[in-house]
Amino acid sequence: MPPPRRRPGGRTARTRAQVLDAVLAELGEHGYDGLTMEAVAARAGVHRATVYRRWEDVGGLLADVLDAAGDDAWRPPDTGSLTGDLAALNHEIQDALTAQPPIMAALIAASFRSEKAAHAQRRLWEDRYARCEIVVSRAVRRGELPPHTDARRLLIASTAPLYHELVLLRTPPDPHLPDDAARTAALAAAAGAFAEPPSASGT
Amino acid sequence: MPPPRRRPGGRTARTRAQVLDAVLAELGEHGYDGLTMEAVAARAGVHRATVYRRWEDVGGLLADVLDAAGDDAWRPPDTGSLTGDLAALNHEIQDALTAQPPIMAALIAASFRSEKAAHAQRRLWEDRYARCEIVVSRAVRRGELPPHTDARRLLIASTAPLYHELVLLRTPPDPHLPDDAARTAALAAAAGAFAEPPSASGT
Repeated sequence: MPPPRRRPGGRTARTRAQVLDAVLAELGEHGYDGLTMEAVAARAGVHRATVYRRWEDVGGLLADVLDAAGDDAWRPPDTGSLTGDLAALNHEIQDALTAQPPIMAALIAASFRSEKAAHAQRRLWEDRYARCEIVVSRAVRRGELPPHTDARRLLIASTAPLYHELVLLRTPPDPHLPDDAARTAALAAAAGAFAEPPSASGT
Repeated sequence: MPPPRRRPGGRTARTRAQVLDAVLAELGEHGYDGLTMEAVAARAGVHRATVYRRWEDVGGLLADVLDAAGDDAWRPPDTGSLTGDLAALNHEIQDALTAQPPIMAALIAASFRSEKAAHAQRRLWEDRYARCEIVVSRAVRRGELPPHTDARRLLIASTAPLYHELVLLRTPPDPHLPDDAARTAALAAAAGAFAEPPSASGT
């Protein structure tokens, strides 16, 4: 007896996974300049017409890779202290930015070539900031931070130096930087740097 | 009586200025993708052969633009306080990153296309950090900071959130961000976040 035919949704999901895997592989091997609809279709074993119809262009492929990356169960680390959580987060970022093949670095570089990729990258990062709000609320609950601390500003202060060094300045990775940047942000936060002004109704 | 012939050094310098002005104009109008040796030569009114011989390729042109940008008398602001100096610096950066035409943004984008441009950008930024060390030494002298504060780390903490928001996340400019990021870095610095560990001989 032949196996039951897969439902269209299943086949569509499988095609998507094959295509996005192929995008990552091509990007890791050749970077943005080597990424073509043809190479992705061939590597995925999917008809070119399907790839064009569904993703339109290379920017569409990259945007879908980024959207798919955000469709996971990722949660921020829970180490028991604000500095520990921020440091663990920074180690994840440093690992991703220095991984081989350099997928994350290539995606960031691609965001300068494609508006669609830039928008998808922003969606992904903003979603990560939102998921990390719990790091800040836990720290407030432990009494490590003033209430009404702006989580997004704190997270950017903690993580931005890593992107600045590794992505913009392209300095070799400094093994101390994830911890140093986390400690810096936590010190500033404890000093009230990210405290939101009291609302009008609260005064 | 005819004017004296210009010295070769003068003519070379004039050619360089014409070519680099043309690079900036082309970059501002068309971005990296529209930047060609031919268009730069035509716009500068200089022989193509001269441009190829002296700058080799588009990366060479961009690197020379960045090197020329660093060949100035720029000094960091001196406002009388650490927070004020860092905030003034951040306003300069935010203005440059949001200027029209978007030359600085285009140069940063180009650094992802050309190794030469990436190296030259790093040289320029590292030179700026070195020039800004006086901001930190003045603050130490005023008693605002502990001695042996690491100027480069402080400067990156203060400036990185601007690049992160405007260049990587591409959020619309926030008029408060230059001051907020400066205040954050100054608070962390006053709390000792950038204090260098005492040297072995000092213990």
